[in-house]
Amino acid sequence: MQHLTLFEQSAVWAVLGMSLLGIAYAFILRAQILAHDKGTERMQEVWGFIKAGANAYLSRQFRTIAILIAILTFVLGASVLIIPPTREAVERFGTEEAALWWVAIGRAVAFLMGSFFSYAVGYVGMNVAVEGNVRVAQAARQGYNPALQVAYRSGTVTGMLTVGLGLLGGTLIFMVFDISAPDALLGFGFGGSLIALFMRVGGGIYTKAADVGADLVGKVEAGIPEDDPRNAAVIADLVGDNVGDCAGMAADVFESFEVTIVSALILGIVLGDAVKGVMGDGQYDMRFVIFPLILRGIGVIASLIGNTVVKTDETKRDAMGAMNKGFYLAAAVSVVGFAIVTQYYMIDPNTGAVDWKPFLATVAGILLAIALDKLTEYYTSTAHTPVKEVSASSQTGAATNILSGTALGMESSMWSAIVIGVSVMASVFIYAGEPAATQFTAILYGVSLTGIGMLTLTGNTISMDSFGPISDNANGIGEMSNLEKNARNVMDDLDAVGNTTKAVTKGIAIGSAVIAAVALFGSFLTDVGKVQEQIGVEKLMQINVAAPEVFIGLLVGGAIPFLFSSIMIRAVSRAAAEIVNEVRRQFKIPGVMEGTVLPDYARAVSISTTAAQNELLGLGILAVVVPMIVGFMLGVEALGGFLAGVILSGQLLAVYQSNAGGAWDNAKKYIEEGNFGGKHSEPHKAAVVGDTVGDPLKDTAGPALNPMIKVMNLVSLIIAPIIVTARPEGEPMGVGVIIVMVVSLAGFVWAIWRSKKPTGVSM
Amino acid sequence: MQHLTLFEQSAVWAVLGMSLLGIAYAFILRAQILAHDKGTERMQEVWGFIKAGANAYLSRQFRTIAILIAILTFVLGASVLIIPPTREAVERFGTEEAALWWVAIGRAVAFLMGSFFSYAVGYVGMNVAVEGNVRVAQAARQGYNPALQVAYRSGTVTGMLTVGLGLLGGTLIFMVFDISAPDALLGFGFGGSLIALFMRVGGGIYTKAADVGADLVGKVEAGIPEDDPRNAAVIADLVGDNVGDCAGMAADVFESFEVTIVSALILGIVLGDAVKGVMGDGQYDMRFVIFPLILRGIGVIASLIGNTVVKTDETKRDAMGAMNKGFYLAAAVSVVGFAIVTQYYMIDPNTGAVDWKPFLATVAGILLAIALDKLTEYYTSTAHTPVKEVSASSQTGAATNILSGTALGMESSMWSAIVIGVSVMASVFIYAGEPAATQFTAILYGVSLTGIGMLTLTGNTISMDSFGPISDNANGIGEMSNLEKNARNVMDDLDAVGNTTKAVTKGIAIGSAVIAAVALFGSFLTDVGKVQEQIGVEKLMQINVAAPEVFIGLLVGGAIPFLFSSIMIRAVSRAAAEIVNEVRRQFKIPGVMEGTVLPDYARAVSISTTAAQNELLGLGILAVVVPMIVGFMLGVEALGGFLAGVILSGQLLAVYQSNAGGAWDNAKKYIEEGNFGGKHSEPHKAAVVGDTVGDPLKDTAGPALNPMIKVMNLVSLIIAPIIVTARPEGEPMGVGVIIVMVVSLAGFVWAIWRSKKPTGVSM
Repeated sequence: MQHLTLFEQSAVWAVLGMSLLGIAYAFILRAQILAHDKGTERMQEVWGFIKAGANAYLSRQFRTIAILIAILTFVLGASVLIIPPTREAVERFGTEEAALWWVAIGRAVAFLMGSFFSYAVGYVGMNVAVEGNVRVAQAARQGYNPALQVAYRSGTVTGMLTVGLGLLGGTLIFMVFDISAPDALLGFGFGGSLIALFMRVGGGIYTKAADVGADLVGKVEAGIPEDDPRNAAVIADLVGDNVGDCAGMAADVFESFEVTIVSALILGIVLGDAVKGVMGDGQYDMRFVIFPLILRGIGVIASLIGNTVVKTDETKRDAMGAMNKGFYLAAAVSVVGFAIVTQYYMIDPNTGAVDWKPFLATVAGILLAIALDKLTEYYTSTAHTPVKEVSASSQTGAATNILSGTALGMESSMWSAIVIGVSVMASVFIYAGEPAATQFTAILYGVSLTGIGMLTLTGNTISMDSFGPISDNANGIGEMSNLEKNARNVMDDLDAVGNTTKAVTKGIAIGSAVIAAVALFGSFLTDVGKVQEQIGVEKLMQINVAAPEVFIGLLVGGAIPFLFSSIMIRAVSRAAAEIVNEVRRQFKIPGVMEGTVLPDYARAVSISTTAAQNELLGLGILAVVVPMIVGFMLGVEALGGFLAGVILSGQLLAVYQSNAGGAWDNAKKYIEEGNFGGKHSEPHKAAVVGDTVGDPLKDTAGPALNPMIKVMNLVSLIIAPIIVTARPEGEPMGVGVIIVMVVSLAGFVWAIWRSKKPTGVSM
Repeated sequence: MQHLTLFEQSAVWAVLGMSLLGIAYAFILRAQILAHDKGTERMQEVWGFIKAGANAYLSRQFRTIAILIAILTFVLGASVLIIPPTREAVERFGTEEAALWWVAIGRAVAFLMGSFFSYAVGYVGMNVAVEGNVRVAQAARQGYNPALQVAYRSGTVTGMLTVGLGLLGGTLIFMVFDISAPDALLGFGFGGSLIALFMRVGGGIYTKAADVGADLVGKVEAGIPEDDPRNAAVIADLVGDNVGDCAGMAADVFESFEVTIVSALILGIVLGDAVKGVMGDGQYDMRFVIFPLILRGIGVIASLIGNTVVKTDETKRDAMGAMNKGFYLAAAVSVVGFAIVTQYYMIDPNTGAVDWKPFLATVAGILLAIALDKLTEYYTSTAHTPVKEVSASSQTGAATNILSGTALGMESSMWSAIVIGVSVMASVFIYAGEPAATQFTAILYGVSLTGIGMLTLTGNTISMDSFGPISDNANGIGEMSNLEKNARNVMDDLDAVGNTTKAVTKGIAIGSAVIAAVALFGSFLTDVGKVQEQIGVEKLMQINVAAPEVFIGLLVGGAIPFLFSSIMIRAVSRAAAEIVNEVRRQFKIPGVMEGTVLPDYARAVSISTTAAQNELLGLGILAVVVPMIVGFMLGVEALGGFLAGVILSGQLLAVYQSNAGGAWDNAKKYIEEGNFGGKHSEPHKAAVVGDTVGDPLKDTAGPALNPMIKVMNLVSLIIAPIIVTARPEGEPMGVGVIIVMVVSLAGFVWAIWRSKKPTGVSM
């Protein structure tokens, strides 16, 4: 931290303290939750099945991906032999040799840390959710507020862990590497994104295979209620909520949180270098690096404060209101905090005036979060026209229901793209008066602050999101243990509120993924240019999509989210069919249908687990090799075009799938509320088809695109210097490049072939 | 033609002659078809309903769009006051004043000509199809070959008219404007594209509203067969095949045919100017302009020759084989012709060597057409795994059927993007050795020749495509007139073959749309740069998607195809619901169900017609104002990003929708062939849902994206010079620009609002 003033050094230590405070708070809360009662023996029996299934999944997941993580850790460390340390690293660590070692270890350790933190957030989050759900069910027997508190606090553990670990990693790396941090930060981001991709893909496939399978054979064929203990897939379905909505979502948002801080720090260093102004040569203006760290620190404190007021009483029973109160309190605390920091710290050293631009860009992020929130709500809530239209179209059958939801999803993705475009435009306007030399970097920095702003209240967001699956599971345990009606009512209500909070989080997760990706993508040019300068080749000045190779890169990039979605939807369908066959088989076992013989829950759990694991390696390899193929084959500018394509169609497809799925889900609920014939009517049957179609779109394919977009961006940023070094413009390709290309292509073909392989399903 | 050698002048006249020959052949064929017998009184009665419905639709269509065409003709003519004639135009017409008048009239007349030709192709094509279908039904009573011949020849009328008029327009404009042709050519392309958009949108909505409505209430609810005369929507359904598959498809392919020649001529002029080499200053190398014209001329002759061999005999009854024989003969004739022209004409004046590069780029186009053909067939034919998988997934219900088709469509769009990317890459490789100064233009010229190559056999393609709806209608007339079993068998067989030829054409239509759009998009930079040079502002050198404004342009561009698809799907659903209600109402009229009272066919025809017309203006305005909003608000570079986004997501969505729809359709047929339980089984019901969902995707939304992509490209090319002139970099916006932006935004809002307006449907 040799470039920092004493005040700035203290601020960084304070931020580190806040991150540790967040983590400590998470563990205190966890201990408090564990102290609650676990209820009756039957409740604990049901819960035992869920817990065993959830743990089996995550430990299996770990074994599947550990090898890949180990290989990549080694590769990142060894990459220093191809991409030498930057001159900043040499400056930071004194000699070239010291820099070489520090950067090698830094890249490897940061990657490992990113992976580990991401996995830890998912693991602990899921673990607490599982520990929480049975205690929520028991608390519901005491009253509404106790149940709300246990459920929300269980979610808060994950929330505070997410912000705590995300901030801890970024701050530590900056403390050690100072101005040479970008290298290690990219590794940190990559580790987090890759694990998030695995958690999303695995969790998404698991949860929807179990859910769709259980519904198709239970609700539709056998006509028994949801969560009926005679259904062999019911435990897998409950486990799925934890691995998908808790572990998957937590890792995903952790990664967005982490990647936005990574991009803000990288761009802050570049911008500080560019505008250094009054300071002498070799000096950096570190304001732009310290500011986002402080913002994040304030966010942690604000979430902490906000979370304490989440409570209701037995007459009001207003869970949504309580959570919103916490959210708005945290938002207010943050904005005031941001303004104070700006007023006293963000002073332009040249003019002495307060620089409000970063503040404005951050606030644009908060507004973007609210806008996406409202947009998602408009398109997916039963209170507004779109969902009602989907419900109405169910009257003419399943086909018109599907068409109506498809049209709705497509329309909503258009608006979401426009809203995100406007929020990027905000930075263009804010930095309109900037000098031409630094304007480009300043605008990108503004975009990264918009990302920081969006995720300020991650602590609250994750708490609200995890609340969903926890209440859902509590309700399931309640159903399976025949709890008394009072308690069931409480849980039913919390479950419904949880559905809403879950949907809203999804909109923010996608939006933040896109903003983070745009910031990363924007730094692509800066990053590549720096390496090119260092090795003395001509600097890349633009990503010109009018050039045919770049356009081809764009085309291939745009196609990749379609491929990913296709593979994931197919994986869910296949696994669901396998579940259907298994449950059908068990229904035929004498005693199961009568409820006297317990079905074999473990087999359904095992089917879902296997199906989820099967796709991990293939998709993980695709995410890594496709940028390599494009980059080595078509060059670094085409790789930029590729990234633009991935972000563009990734965003559109993610929102389309997420909102269409949400709308189908709620259109069914709207009919169940007694509209258009109510439950068991023909329109209801049509709406159930729509809901089932929407399940893998909204909970598997759509959400997995968020981490996929970022993994590809980070892989590209990491390999771009290698491409620049190894594949000089105009020269024939070296043997090394050809080998890399052949290996990557082989990986691509293998992954595609793998995704087609039946998992032993007879359809 | 003052820059042409005597040989070249003769060649251009010869090409003009070939285009007229194509048109003449079309009219001779038409007269021959009209001479055939129209069959029994009942057949003529049914046919009378179809004819009246079809004509009512097209004349209503004409009235709806005439005003917009008139306004745009005036605007294009007046645009000369803002974008002055190029220096080439001044050179061509002697004085500045003469150039002003010629260019003003040229732009207006070329636009009008493009619109008129496109409309004429659609109108005559539909008219001959309607005249043909009853005669096919009658010919089927004589035998298989007579029926095949009448059906195929009826299609050939449209095919030859398409190539004849497309070539005539391009050649005439070049003869009059010589090197200043690009201006007028853009107008010609724009007129054709806009009408194609209207024909696709209107035809697509009409045909699927009628089809979905008729099926939902007839086949699904009432359980009566397809084409049953008691169904009030049956005539609208038959009319729909003509307005959608004949008029819509013909206008669409005409436009691709026209736009590829437009882009090849524009790029040929630029390339010729760039490489002029041995010729003195002021001289142009016109090889690159004459070559595509000759290629097209050869294509016309080749199609003519190919079409004459389409026949079979009563023992073989092989319609597909006969058509393929014609196609491959034409392909062989073309390639040989191309090679001869290259050998004797494409001599590099500098080296005296034969320049085989343009030939290779053209052949790449023929290979691309074949590759897309095979790809479409693989994903949509019952003979291959994908469709069988969709059929199999119907066993677990409609939801898994939909999911399976969705995954299939997404996967196929990825491959299609890669195939198109490879074909663009072909030009990059072919022109790899070109000098840096001309390489970019040369590659784009190569891409435009790939487009020319793809559409060489348009005459055959359209004949095969129109064959589909003609046989379908003949079959419908047969069903409604209770023709004898022998004749019905012939028609059933021709109908099935027609389904295949229709699907294959769709793949080529999308591919050619993308290639044409890429060529146009590529010339964007050249085009803008020229104007900037002329008015003395800094030249745009790239479309840098890493710049935030350009990225926002890309984002908005990518979102637009989602908006279009959404509006069209919703329009079909709404209109189909209205049809359902109308047919239900008529079923209740005493006597209709018993077959003693004729239903009121005209009302269903009128509902479909109104629904189709309702969307035309809104979508047309959207296609024109959105590029204006992006261009004036974010600048000309962002407009380039916008175009890249439109092409990218337009291509992906078009293929996705088209192939998913095709697969659902054939998955149903595969079950009907007796697999997985056959007709009336539960899997069959599930597959019918998939088929119905696929209908508007594959026949309305998907195909309409082709002309939409090109309209937006052409609008952008036309307005780019205005933006450059009216909105100088760094200066505040003028009042004029602000007015244009406000008006465009108002148009956008109006169009969105309009698309939401119910059409009087009670759902």
